[in-house]
Parts: sequence; C-alpha cells; structure tokens
Amino acid sequence: MKKIGFIGLGIMGKPMAMNLIKAGYSLIVYDIKREAVKEVVATGAKEGKSSKDVAAQSEVVITMLPNSPDVKEAVLGKNGVLEGAKAGLILVDMSSIAPMVSKEVATEVEKKGVEMLDAPVSGGEPKAKDATLSIMVGGKKEVFEQVEGILKVMGSSAVLVGDIGSGNITKLANQIIVALNIAAMSEAMVMATKAGVDPEKVFQAIRGGLAGSNVLNAKVPLVLEGNFKPGFRIELHIKDLANALDTAHSVGVPVPLTSGVMEIMQALKVDGKGGNDHGGIVQFYEKLAKAEVRHQK
Amino acid sequence: MKKIGFIGLGIMGKPMAMNLIKAGYSLIVYDIKREAVKEVVATGAKEGKSSKDVAAQSEVVITMLPNSPDVKEAVLGKNGVLEGAKAGLILVDMSSIAPMVSKEVATEVEKKGVEMLDAPVSGGEPKAKDATLSIMVGGKKEVFEQVEGILKVMGSSAVLVGDIGSGNITKLANQIIVALNIAAMSEAMVMATKAGVDPEKVFQAIRGGLAGSNVLNAKVPLVLEGNFKPGFRIELHIKDLANALDTAHSVGVPVPLTSGVMEIMQALKVDGKGGNDHGGIVQFYEKLAKAEVRHQK
Repeated sequence: MKKIGFIGLGIMGKPMAMNLIKAGYSLIVYDIKREAVKEVVATGAKEGKSSKDVAAQSEVVITMLPNSPDVKEAVLGKNGVLEGAKAGLILVDMSSIAPMVSKEVATEVEKKGVEMLDAPVSGGEPKAKDATLSIMVGGKKEVFEQVEGILKVMGSSAVLVGDIGSGNITKLANQIIVALNIAAMSEAMVMATKAGVDPEKVFQAIRGGLAGSNVLNAKVPLVLEGNFKPGFRIELHIKDLANALDTAHSVGVPVPLTSGVMEIMQALKVDGKGGNDHGGIVQFYEKLAKAEVRHQK
Repeated sequence: MKKIGFIGLGIMGKPMAMNLIKAGYSLIVYDIKREAVKEVVATGAKEGKSSKDVAAQSEVVITMLPNSPDVKEAVLGKNGVLEGAKAGLILVDMSSIAPMVSKEVATEVEKKGVEMLDAPVSGGEPKAKDATLSIMVGGKKEVFEQVEGILKVMGSSAVLVGDIGSGNITKLANQIIVALNIAAMSEAMVMATKAGVDPEKVFQAIRGGLAGSNVLNAKVPLVLEGNFKPGFRIELHIKDLANALDTAHSVGVPVPLTSGVMEIMQALKVDGKGGNDHGGIVQFYEKLAKAEVRHQK
C-alpha cells in the first residue's frame, strides 16, 4: 500500500483522511490548524512538520484546501510540497479550484518529475464522512490508474474526464447547474406559494415530470421546513461560481444566468445569510416577496 | 358514461380526444379547422356545429386551446360554450393559459350554473398519444371527483392542487423550472466543452449527483446529436413564460432568472429558431461561443 500524505484537514479533508486510515493506509498529515492535526493523529496518522515534510515521506500527496491561492502556497510556496517531493511523487489535488491554476501548478511540479491530477469532489460533508463522494478527475490515464484505488476509498465514484484541469472544469459545470436549479426551484415555488397554491402540492404534482430533479427532491423538503442548516454553504458556492465565471469568460462563453444567480448569492451574503445552505437561495425571493414556501398547517 | 364535448383538436387535443373515443366515451367535437374535425370524426366522434352546439349536447366539455384569448372566445364568445350550456355542465379547460383568465372565465360560467376546472397538462405530444400526461387540476374537490376517471383516460396522473387557477399556476411553476434547468445545462455544457472537456464525460460524471435532473437525462443526449426537432417548441415555451412573468409580477414576486431565460428564448425566436425544441436553448450559447456540445468522434 502506498504511503499517503494528506494536507488540509478541514470539514471535508478530515473525514476523507480518516476514511483512508480506516482502510489501512499509513498517513502523514499536515494542516495550518494544529487542532485538526491532533484529531486525525489520534485516529492513527503521523504528524508532518510542514507540507514539505509530508511530501518528503510520501508516495502520494493529497491536498484538500479552500481555494486556488491555498493550493499554490501549499504546493509551490516556501516549505511546500515541491520542496520535499522526490521524482515520481503523485500529487492529487482534491480541492475545488480554478482549472487554470490546476494547469499552472501541474506544469511547475512536472519540472521536478511530480505527476499531478486534479480531482475535486461533489457531495459535501455527509458524503465525505460516508465515503460516497463523486470524484471528477483530470490528468493522465496511467497516473489515474495508480491512485484509482485510493480515490475509491473516499468516494463511490471516480471518473477520469480528461486532461489536467478537466476535473475542476467538470466540477464548475456541476456547480453552475446546481446553483441555477436551486434558483429555478425558488422562483417557481415562491411564485406558486404567493399565488395561493400549497407548495407541497406543487412539488408532488411536478416532481415526476420534466421539472423533476435531484435538487427538487433534496431541497424542497428542507425549504418546506425552513431548514437552511448547511450542507453546502452559500459562501462556498459563491467561491465556485467566481471560478466558473472566470473560466467561462476566459474561454469565451457568456453565462448570463450564472452571473444572475451569483448576484443573488452575493445579496444573501450581504444580508448575513452566507453561512446558510445553498437551498437558502429561496430566501432571497421570500424576503422580497414577503412569502415563505413552508408546510401549510 | 358521461357524454363529452371536446373543443380544440390541435397537436395535443386530437390524440387526447381519440384516447377518450378508444375508452368508449361518446364524443362530440369542434375545431375551427374542419380537417382536424374530419379526422377525429373518422375514428367515431360526432361533429358539432359550434362550441355552443357541442355544449348543448354534453355533460362535460373539455377545451384544449392555444392560449387565454382562445379560451375566452370559445367559452364566453358568440356561439360559445356558455350559450349552449345547461346548468350542471362541467367545463374542464385543459389549455395552458393565464391563471387569472381561468378565474375570470370560471366566475362568468358559474353564473349560469356551470362548474369549471382548470386542468393543464405536461408531457407534450408523445405523452398525449400514449395517454401518459401529467394533469394538474384546480377547482372544487366534488367537481374534480366527477371527472377524475375521464382525466385518467388521458393521463397517467391527475392531481387536484387547489382552487380554480391552481392548475395553471402549477403548470407555470413547472415551465419556469424546465426552462431554467435547460438554460443551466446549456451554460454548464457549453463552458465545459469550449474549455476542452468531452461533454459526454461531463454528463456521465455529474448526472448521478445533485446536478442530476430529468432535463439533463432527456436533453443532453439530444444536444449531443444536434437534434432539436420538437418535442416542445421554444415559441410555446415563450407563451408559457409570458404568463409566468405576468402571474409572478401580479402577485408581487420578482423572477429575474425567468426573465433572463425569456430573453434568451426571444433571441432564438428572432434568430429563426422558435420552432426548435426548447432543448435548443443551448443554441443561443453555442452560436455566441462558436462551440457546439456534440459527440466527439
């Protein structure tokens, strides 16, 4: 079994690392927050002194960090992965970051013989814990095949979608669809509710037809209860849409509706709701319309 | 078995009427186009001279017409349903029209003792033929129960969602979601394609997660083939969104993204694509981005 380094033990990284330990892998871990490191070390991991130290002792390094600058810093920065890496190391960046940055970092690390995959995930904290994440991978097939078994410890699927950066492009496509499907549900349900129809009956009448979706099935029941506990926070979805807008514009694709839902999420953040689940997009409409999509008693 | 009058034998009305004849109902039919009438008469229906004549000989009258003004004319106009109706007649308007007009017409016909339901359908021509439409019904429960059996001859489900007008409100909610889910798929898939990822792989990687939807499953395979044959035409979806915007604004609900997708469909109509399937919303993006979401060979 390969020796794995794991950098970034946040809400997602911690349960992912723990699932690798449970599966019998020997892990060396690092995070700028000592507390998270202690917790994972208590379940059997070894503590690394820095990203450099982690890389020096590993055959595969997994990074799970908030955004592009964090990945650049942890990999290319002082005491970073690249300083410690030997040729042949495989770097699997599972963070959701800008696809262009994945490509940049891959080009840099290749100079030292390090192979990189971008492998962002979808599913959020519950699926990180259950090891049922969907993992979208970009990179070389022969590199993917060497770590496929490791990825499948953390997720129920790991699909190679294309070259380096393709994992994050696919993730951004996913995030565009999820954000807009939630906004679609919101406009429809607030309109129907304020026009006097029981939103639960609307849901039951339309869910089996072309309007049916995983967003409708997952989010309408929570909205009906007024439950906006995350799940996946609006402020994280804002980060993803910022990367989506950058990517779309850089390749020359206008995305006016993605831009629209981005503004709606920005408005919610200004209104103090950035920490709510992204199902809380409906609250933008509810507040303006003074009507709530809730169970009728 | 109740004697049924059927007014409006277009793309949807004709197969719906024929399914009632097959089920053994005695039908008297009318349409301003003689050709459609002849075709249905050939399968066993009786020809009515006018909407008035149809109503005079029926216990239940079904109308299936293009939009609000057509329903007003056929029901309240000269030689219309109301002139021929006896007290106790049940009028089931299965057209997709403005909910306010459903309410207005119901108020008028009630004065003569006629009970009305609004019962728009979703599913399009294939499901009209297969008798698998989803029927969303607004009106009184006791009236609904009298015609439920008739509706279930034409559809696989008939759900009473609320008072008169609620059927059309639910249909508009459905149409908002479908239009925006198609636009979401379009922005995501055109971005991913032009950024260099095989759109089919993106589809396979994301369809099982939160981004998954009936729109994705139904429309992506057609888009990958460049198949925009209707199905459901963009110009008809424009009609529905016009009613959705009117309804949302009249009850005080801002729907900025619905408004955005309406403009995109208007642009496609101007571009001569109004007759394409609404999956053709993707063509708005493809043309601007000069990139097509197609199978890679």
